[in-house]
Amino acid sequence: MSASIAKNIEPITEHRANVLYQHGTLALLVPGLLEGTTTMGELLAQGDTGIGTGEGLDGEIIVLDGKAWRVGRTGVVEPVPDDFTMPFATMHRAAFQYQCERADIGLEELNRRIVEANGRANTFFAVIVRGTFSFMKTRAVIKQQAPYPTLEEVADRQAIFLGQDVRGTMLGYFSPVMFHGAAVAGFHEHFLADDHSIGGHVLDAVLERGEIHTQVFDTLVQHLPVDNPEYRNHDFTRDNIADAITKAEGDTAK
Amino acid sequence: MSASIAKNIEPITEHRANVLYQHGTLALLVPGLLEGTTTMGELLAQGDTGIGTGEGLDGEIIVLDGKAWRVGRTGVVEPVPDDFTMPFATMHRAAFQYQCERADIGLEELNRRIVEANGRANTFFAVIVRGTFSFMKTRAVIKQQAPYPTLEEVADRQAIFLGQDVRGTMLGYFSPVMFHGAAVAGFHEHFLADDHSIGGHVLDAVLERGEIHTQVFDTLVQHLPVDNPEYRNHDFTRDNIADAITKAEGDTAK
Repeated sequence: MSASIAKNIEPITEHRANVLYQHGTLALLVPGLLEGTTTMGELLAQGDTGIGTGEGLDGEIIVLDGKAWRVGRTGVVEPVPDDFTMPFATMHRAAFQYQCERADIGLEELNRRIVEANGRANTFFAVIVRGTFSFMKTRAVIKQQAPYPTLEEVADRQAIFLGQDVRGTMLGYFSPVMFHGAAVAGFHEHFLADDHSIGGHVLDAVLERGEIHTQVFDTLVQHLPVDNPEYRNHDFTRDNIADAITKAEGDTAK
Repeated sequence: MSASIAKNIEPITEHRANVLYQHGTLALLVPGLLEGTTTMGELLAQGDTGIGTGEGLDGEIIVLDGKAWRVGRTGVVEPVPDDFTMPFATMHRAAFQYQCERADIGLEELNRRIVEANGRANTFFAVIVRGTFSFMKTRAVIKQQAPYPTLEEVADRQAIFLGQDVRGTMLGYFSPVMFHGAAVAGFHEHFLADDHSIGGHVLDAVLERGEIHTQVFDTLVQHLPVDNPEYRNHDFTRDNIADAITKAEGDTAK
């Protein structure tokens, strides 16, 4: 037995399109462990596609084609610098497969059909919906300061944005129910308009017409902030993690 | 976006001592998804150390120094062939660090002290205890045939083995509470006597004197049997996974 713990030499997701990389878990956010424990630069080494949030729940992040964008409380879409720190993010290397085209369909029904067509409610997968949305409702949480509040306390501290007839990309991740806590069971979806007029965490939407692409993962790589003192010392047994996540993540959490 | 999903070219844990590899989850065993969905050979490519069970809960597996051993209902310790199929296993590359020596201590207190010394109840870690056990109580489940029963139904179909003053190695994995379901929250420990007189899933033990080594992981690589029809079609929302695992995994599950 050797005496030291080896370090990662290269990103663990290198060249692997079957792998979903996650830093932190939603369970960390529930009791307010909102310190940034990775950077956007580190995350971009693990994938070119993803969603997440900044330190203190600073905005809603979406990464498309290797470019990271953030929507904050003002609704303005801004590029994310590499040194931006984050407590939670989900990333992967895009290798989507065409599923189908859909028209005139609400978010809930759309999500139900995506799972059905995929036939895989027990696997992690990513979905991209590109097209025109006749209705889009998103939110962005207002950045919190330490000492951080719980996710439940933050739930009301959010800006809501509404869009109509907006072209753009909705990127979502589906997680199996047995990983509720580590992730949101069901879909967790962020949006970015092509003209950057609206973006954020999707609460509701109606797709006018769009193409659906999905990518199935057989492996979850779950990275934890093991050297963060707040994380190490927190007693998660006192948190009602599952309920808090379902409540805080709004309409899209199933 | 490319049209195909890339395959793993090499083991995802290659040269990484900070990574815990898991195939399947304990949540799969709860409703009786016991078909072997990986092989011992595939698992040995991911690590040289680990625990697991065979198809149909066929015995208790322990892997030490790259060698895999199985204890079945007769209590005999046998080498595991590379084509042996398994529904669940936890593997890693050994790079343990010395923690301390302990004497005259029961399993529950021993486990409590290991977590305390590690200061990391929220991280995955492995523990090896090498020494003499004045008392050792293990179990091995009797292999089940398809259609498979649930984990709860199987709980009584196990052989119990008792040892006294036995030298050997106890290998365990500690999982944070937020991953209960995917793993057993707390410790999951298997044992192998140096003389192979006793082995299996540890239910209780008293360490007379032994050395404790631990290895902390910052990353869980969770591989799921996404192409297994029974897994894909199962409705996990009807299973009371957390309770069933706590009950079935016996004394060591916290």
